[in-house]
Amino acid sequence: MNIEQRTEELIRAAGERMLGYHQLEVTSKGRHGDYVTQADRAVQEMLMEGLAGLYPEASFMAEEKENASLTDGPAFIIDPIDGTTNFFRFREASVISVGLTVGKKAREGWIYHPYRRQMYHAVRGQGAFRDGERLRVSQVPAENALVYLGTASYYEELMSLTGLSALRLLPRIADFRRTGSCALELCDIAEGKAEALFEWRLSPWDYCAGTLLVEEAGGRCADILRGEVTFSGPIPLLAANGASFEKLLQWLRQVHEEWRSGEETGCPARQD
Amino acid sequence: MNIEQRTEELIRAAGERMLGYHQLEVTSKGRHGDYVTQADRAVQEMLMEGLAGLYPEASFMAEEKENASLTDGPAFIIDPIDGTTNFFRFREASVISVGLTVGKKAREGWIYHPYRRQMYHAVRGQGAFRDGERLRVSQVPAENALVYLGTASYYEELMSLTGLSALRLLPRIADFRRTGSCALELCDIAEGKAEALFEWRLSPWDYCAGTLLVEEAGGRCADILRGEVTFSGPIPLLAANGASFEKLLQWLRQVHEEWRSGEETGCPARQD
Repeated sequence: MNIEQRTEELIRAAGERMLGYHQLEVTSKGRHGDYVTQADRAVQEMLMEGLAGLYPEASFMAEEKENASLTDGPAFIIDPIDGTTNFFRFREASVISVGLTVGKKAREGWIYHPYRRQMYHAVRGQGAFRDGERLRVSQVPAENALVYLGTASYYEELMSLTGLSALRLLPRIADFRRTGSCALELCDIAEGKAEALFEWRLSPWDYCAGTLLVEEAGGRCADILRGEVTFSGPIPLLAANGASFEKLLQWLRQVHEEWRSGEETGCPARQD
Repeated sequence: MNIEQRTEELIRAAGERMLGYHQLEVTSKGRHGDYVTQADRAVQEMLMEGLAGLYPEASFMAEEKENASLTDGPAFIIDPIDGTTNFFRFREASVISVGLTVGKKAREGWIYHPYRRQMYHAVRGQGAFRDGERLRVSQVPAENALVYLGTASYYEELMSLTGLSALRLLPRIADFRRTGSCALELCDIAEGKAEALFEWRLSPWDYCAGTLLVEEAGGRCADILRGEVTFSGPIPLLAANGASFEKLLQWLRQVHEEWRSGEETGCPARQD
């Protein structure tokens, strides 16, 4: 087996391990709705050990790891279970997300859906695939878009911005969807089953693999306020097909401006 | 076979028919995001013909049927494909919903998930079941609740109310979810995989079978503004487990009051 095959085999095995947990110990991580289970930790450890063996030069940034900072060399950015609440509620909508950056740019990504036993994989410049089948974003424009509504639910200071975004976007698109797993939703966008996702604060392990997948499937991704997607810390993310990206970006920037300025006609402004 | 078995067999066969459509003709029904396909019509016709044969005394109210009004005798309330947008986007999150009312009260309900080949069934006073297995709502309180956010996306005049609801509820619960199929979400609540659903305007075919399922699984349902759930026309619906119902009802009524009064501190008031 080559290193590609061994990496996939490792991630699939981590998915099997994830499915083996039936008694979950759920611990709050302190913020609103932010939980961890012993399975998150075990899957992360298994992935980090396995990947360190395959890629001895790589460093690691991961959701359940402390003091994680992105380095210039090869770096894995890992969410062992993206959709932890779904996981401990047995909703079957959680995935493993593994991104690889080099020079702080996304080079390769894997997202594994253990319940469906489907592997999503993208390599910069080589396309996006689900179990070997090439993926393409939809051609649906913003006006008919299904948009994943990210709630940034861990951050109370952003809830008024999320509420205002819902209010302003809903009349302009087809409708919202929300699964509770960002990485899973990015797979859906890459597959053309939805058009876009936005969330005012996401961490690199939520979107590293998924944004590469969307881009390699023909879509576009951005830090809503600053432009280029970066992986050193949390950003406000938009990921979309090409047909809806520009309009959604413009609308979201308008929403942010309205929220900042706390216009009389809008929802309550930020409390700071 | 008895009439129960023949009814289930008919609904399962309608589900197989639904899965047989791969080329969908999508037509707008005029309102924002409201579509119908030839499959919705064909599945409805198949169900109405079959049920009329099994229950010759019954009348029919159905999503794709004109001039439907609820009668006092046995009446079927049918959504041939709940989640039409999901259906034509091949998102595998659409169900068939068949409710039976007698004296305008829900007596029996069936929800069939064709992609998973699962049949949900409830009879007033006899419990809620998925393929024969008894269902129970969760014990999770409002503060930790996963709540399905209904967007009432066909009704532009309600979008400001939906946005305000999202804004006010998000800090008080765990998080929102949204599949785009009300009936499917009511199944999830009955199974204990989520706590609640609210939407400011739903039609009887969206919720007739599902609210009975939730109630028979130990949950509670209400017209948010008037109390008792009725089936003669659209209502604002809350469906929830027993542990979260009272608080959610109180919060939603407060949101409605704020929206009506157009308080300075809130989102824009209704335009009427």
